[in-house]
Amino acid sequence: MFSTVLVANRGEIALRIARACRELGIRTVAVHSTADRDSAVVRFADEAVHIGPPPSKGSYLSVPAIVEAALRTGAQAVHPGYGFLSEDPDFAEICEANGITFIGPAPHVMQQLGDKAVARAVMAEAGLPVLPGSRNALASSAEAKETARRTGFPVILKAVAGGGGRGMAVVRQPEELPRAYNETRAHARAVFGDDRLYLERFIEDARHIEVQVLCDQHGSAVHLGERDCSVQRRHQKLVEEAPAPNLPDTVREAMCAAAVRGAVAVGYVGAGTFEFVLAPSGEFHLMEINCRLQVEHPVTEMVTGIDIVREQILIAAGLPLSFRQSEIVARGVAVECRVNAEDPARDFAPAPGLLTEFVPPGGPFVRVDTHAYPGWLIGPDYDSLLAKTVVWAPDRQQAIARMDRALSEFRVDGGGVRTTLPFLRRTLARPEFRSATHTTDLVATMSAEGAAGGAEPGDPAVVAAG
Amino acid sequence: MFSTVLVANRGEIALRIARACRELGIRTVAVHSTADRDSAVVRFADEAVHIGPPPSKGSYLSVPAIVEAALRTGAQAVHPGYGFLSEDPDFAEICEANGITFIGPAPHVMQQLGDKAVARAVMAEAGLPVLPGSRNALASSAEAKETARRTGFPVILKAVAGGGGRGMAVVRQPEELPRAYNETRAHARAVFGDDRLYLERFIEDARHIEVQVLCDQHGSAVHLGERDCSVQRRHQKLVEEAPAPNLPDTVREAMCAAAVRGAVAVGYVGAGTFEFVLAPSGEFHLMEINCRLQVEHPVTEMVTGIDIVREQILIAAGLPLSFRQSEIVARGVAVECRVNAEDPARDFAPAPGLLTEFVPPGGPFVRVDTHAYPGWLIGPDYDSLLAKTVVWAPDRQQAIARMDRALSEFRVDGGGVRTTLPFLRRTLARPEFRSATHTTDLVATMSAEGAAGGAEPGDPAVVAAG
Repeated sequence: MFSTVLVANRGEIALRIARACRELGIRTVAVHSTADRDSAVVRFADEAVHIGPPPSKGSYLSVPAIVEAALRTGAQAVHPGYGFLSEDPDFAEICEANGITFIGPAPHVMQQLGDKAVARAVMAEAGLPVLPGSRNALASSAEAKETARRTGFPVILKAVAGGGGRGMAVVRQPEELPRAYNETRAHARAVFGDDRLYLERFIEDARHIEVQVLCDQHGSAVHLGERDCSVQRRHQKLVEEAPAPNLPDTVREAMCAAAVRGAVAVGYVGAGTFEFVLAPSGEFHLMEINCRLQVEHPVTEMVTGIDIVREQILIAAGLPLSFRQSEIVARGVAVECRVNAEDPARDFAPAPGLLTEFVPPGGPFVRVDTHAYPGWLIGPDYDSLLAKTVVWAPDRQQAIARMDRALSEFRVDGGGVRTTLPFLRRTLARPEFRSATHTTDLVATMSAEGAAGGAEPGDPAVVAAG
Repeated sequence: MFSTVLVANRGEIALRIARACRELGIRTVAVHSTADRDSAVVRFADEAVHIGPPPSKGSYLSVPAIVEAALRTGAQAVHPGYGFLSEDPDFAEICEANGITFIGPAPHVMQQLGDKAVARAVMAEAGLPVLPGSRNALASSAEAKETARRTGFPVILKAVAGGGGRGMAVVRQPEELPRAYNETRAHARAVFGDDRLYLERFIEDARHIEVQVLCDQHGSAVHLGERDCSVQRRHQKLVEEAPAPNLPDTVREAMCAAAVRGAVAVGYVGAGTFEFVLAPSGEFHLMEINCRLQVEHPVTEMVTGIDIVREQILIAAGLPLSFRQSEIVARGVAVECRVNAEDPARDFAPAPGLLTEFVPPGGPFVRVDTHAYPGWLIGPDYDSLLAKTVVWAPDRQQAIARMDRALSEFRVDGGGVRTTLPFLRRTLARPEFRSATHTTDLVATMSAEGAAGGAEPGDPAVVAAG
C-alpha cells in the first residue's frame, strides 16, 4: 500500500480524498494555490505544498509543479479528483514516467475514451447502444449538416475533448446549425484547446442516467448500480439520486450490464462512469464515459455502503476487489444536492465572498462534503460548489423530506454570498420531481416559469419549513 | 398524525427530535430556558417558548411551564427526549390529563419499570435473568449487609429512582458497605428526591450490552439488535457501538429475545432499552430498562436504517409498525463517540466557554448530532455533551479508522473550552478496544495509567494523524 499520496485537486473533493487516505493510514500531501493557502485540505493534510497562483493554469493545471511536489514529498501516488488534470492522459503518463502511480485508468484508455468520437466507435463495437451521429470528429460545418440530415433533428454538438457538461449545444433547426457549429467550436478551442466537434441525435424528454463501475487490475469488473442526474442546468448537474426512480428493472439491468461490458472491452481499471440518455420509450444510448471520480459519487456510496475513493486507491495499489457483483446490494435511496455559491436570481452567476456564518446540516442520515468553514473566503477563481448535501432514507419520499429538512437548516451568510439553497428546495417541491416524472428539461421549465430565481422562497414546501 | 409537537428538552436531542418532526411534516415547538434563548433548536423550530431560568427545576423540569406551553401553542404531543422529564410518570400522566399525547410508554409502565426494585421482580417473573440481589428496596444498612452476604461480594448499590449511570456504587468489601450505603442514599435523596436503594451482585470484567426495542399500540414488538456501551467512565457511556463485537450469536439471540419478551410482558409501548451486563462466561443478566430514547440510539439507526425518533412519533400517533422482525437487517458497524466539553486532564471536569471555532467532521459515513455552532456559549448549567460523532463502515476496523479520522478533523476552540477529543482518540487506539476485549473497566484502567488525561495526545494513533 502507498505510504504517501498527493491530492492534486482543491475544494471539497481534495478533502474527500485526503479523508479516505487517512482512513487507510496513508500520509497525505495537499497542493494548493496562493488563494487556497487556508483551505480545509491544507489544514487537514499531513503536508501542504504551494504550487502557484490562481488561475488554475499556473497551479492546479501545472503538471511540472504537481509532479515536482510529488517527488519532493515522497508521494508514491497522485489522486487527481475530478476536473483539472483528472482526465489528462499526458499528466497520467508523466506521473508514471516519474515512478508515481496515477490513481485512475491507464493513459491509453483515458486517451481513447476522452476522445468522444473514438469512444463512440469503440463502444459501438463492444455492442453498446450509441446515438446515431458522426462516426468521427466533424471535418466541417457541411459535414455537420450532412450528418444531422441523416440522424434527423434535434441534434447535439459536442466537443471531442469536452466532458462534465461543458462544450455542448443543442440544435433544433437546420438553419441554426452553422452558427452553433462555429460557436461551439470557438468555445471548445478556448476551453479545451481542441476545437474538434462531433454530432449526435438529441433525445427529447430524456433522463440522464449513469452507471458507476469499478474494475481492478486483475480482470474483475463490477457495477455499483445507477444514478439519476436528470436535474441539470445547462448540462450541469444540480440534484442527483440513487437508485434511479421509476426505472424498469429490465432497463436497469441492461444498462448496468452494458457499462460493465464497455469497461471490460477497453481493459478499464479504476472507477469510471458510463453516462446514458434514457428516452421516454425506455430506449437508452451511451452519451459518454468519465474516466474519473464523479462529483455525485456519494449517492452511490450511501446506498451500497462502498467507499468509492477508498476502492480507487486500493485498485491503484494493485489489490483485487474485495467483493463480487452479487455481494453489492443497494439499500434505500440517497439524494445529493449541490449547494453552489451562485445567485439563482441573477441567472446563477457566481456569488463569492467571505463566509461569516456557515453551519451545515447534521443529524440522522445526513452527510455533508464541504471544504467551507466559517471565515473561509470563497474566491472568484474556482467553481462555485460550496457543499454537497447528501441524505439517505429507506424510500424516496422520506429521502426528499429529509433533504428538505437538511437544506432548511443550512445556514450560510457572508457579504455578497448567495446560494442555490432556496432554488434546490423549490426543485425538490416540484410535482414532476416528487413523482419522478421530470426530465433534463426541469430546470429550464422552472426558469421559464420564473421559479428558479428569487431570494424569497414562496412555494408551500419552503413555507411549511419556516 | 400530529400537526404540532412540543419538544420538552434542550441540546442536541431537542434538535434531533425537531428534525424528525420536520421530516414528518409536523410543526415543532421548542421550549427553552433563559440560558438557551439562542440555542440551535430555538433557531430551528417553528415556534419557541421561554419557560424559565436555569437551573432546570424552573424550566426543563417545570411540568406546569411545559404543559402550559403545549396548550398555548396547540401542541398535540410532547416528546421528552432523554433526561429531564423523560422518565417521569407524573409528567406523562399530567400530559394525558390535558389531552396531550406523551411520546413514550404508558405512565403505569414507566412507574413500574422506573422503580428498579419492582422492575427486577417483574422481569424475573417474565423469565428474564436478573442478578441475585434484594427483592425490594432495602429497608436498612443491616438488610443491605444481609443481602450482600447472600449474593457474595462485590455488590453494587443502586438508587431505585436512578438511571443513566447515576446513583450507583460498587462495594468490594463487607466493611465498606455501611459507608457506601449511607453515601449512596444521601446522593440519591439529593439527586432523585428518593433515597431508596437496592443491591445486586456486581459482575467483574463485565461488558455493558443493551437491546433496543420498539413496540406499537397494536401488540407488535421488535428489537433492533444490540449496542455495546462498555466504554464508560463512572457508569457514564463515552463510546458506543452496534452491533456488539465478539458476541456469540447464541448470546445475541437470547438477549434480544429476552428484551422483546420483557417488553411484551409489561405491555410496553414505544422505544425502550433493556440494559444487560455480560459476564466473561457469556452469562448475561438484566440491569435496568430505560423507558425512553437513549443518547446512543444513532448507532442502531446507522446499522438498521431505521429512524428511531420517527418510529416513536408514529407509534405515539397510533400507527402500527411498518416492518416485521424479519425485515430488520443490521448492516456493517456503527460507532458513536460523545464529545464532551470536559477536561480529561482535570478528572473530566466540565470546561464550558464561548465557542469561537466549531467545525465538526464531515464526509463519507459520518454523522454529527450537535446543538453547538460557532458563537454558541456552552454554559455551566447543563450537561457537558457537545456533539455526538457517529460513523458507519462495513466492518469494525474501518469504522474505528473512520472515527479516528473524523475526530482528527474536529475543530473546537474557545476560551476555557476543553473537550474529550484527545481522550476519545486514545481510547480508540487502545489494544483492548481494537481487539474488542475491553470491559467496563477500560477507562478506569486508562486513568490509572495516566492515559486518560493530558491535553497533548502522545500515543501513536494520535501522532500519526498529525
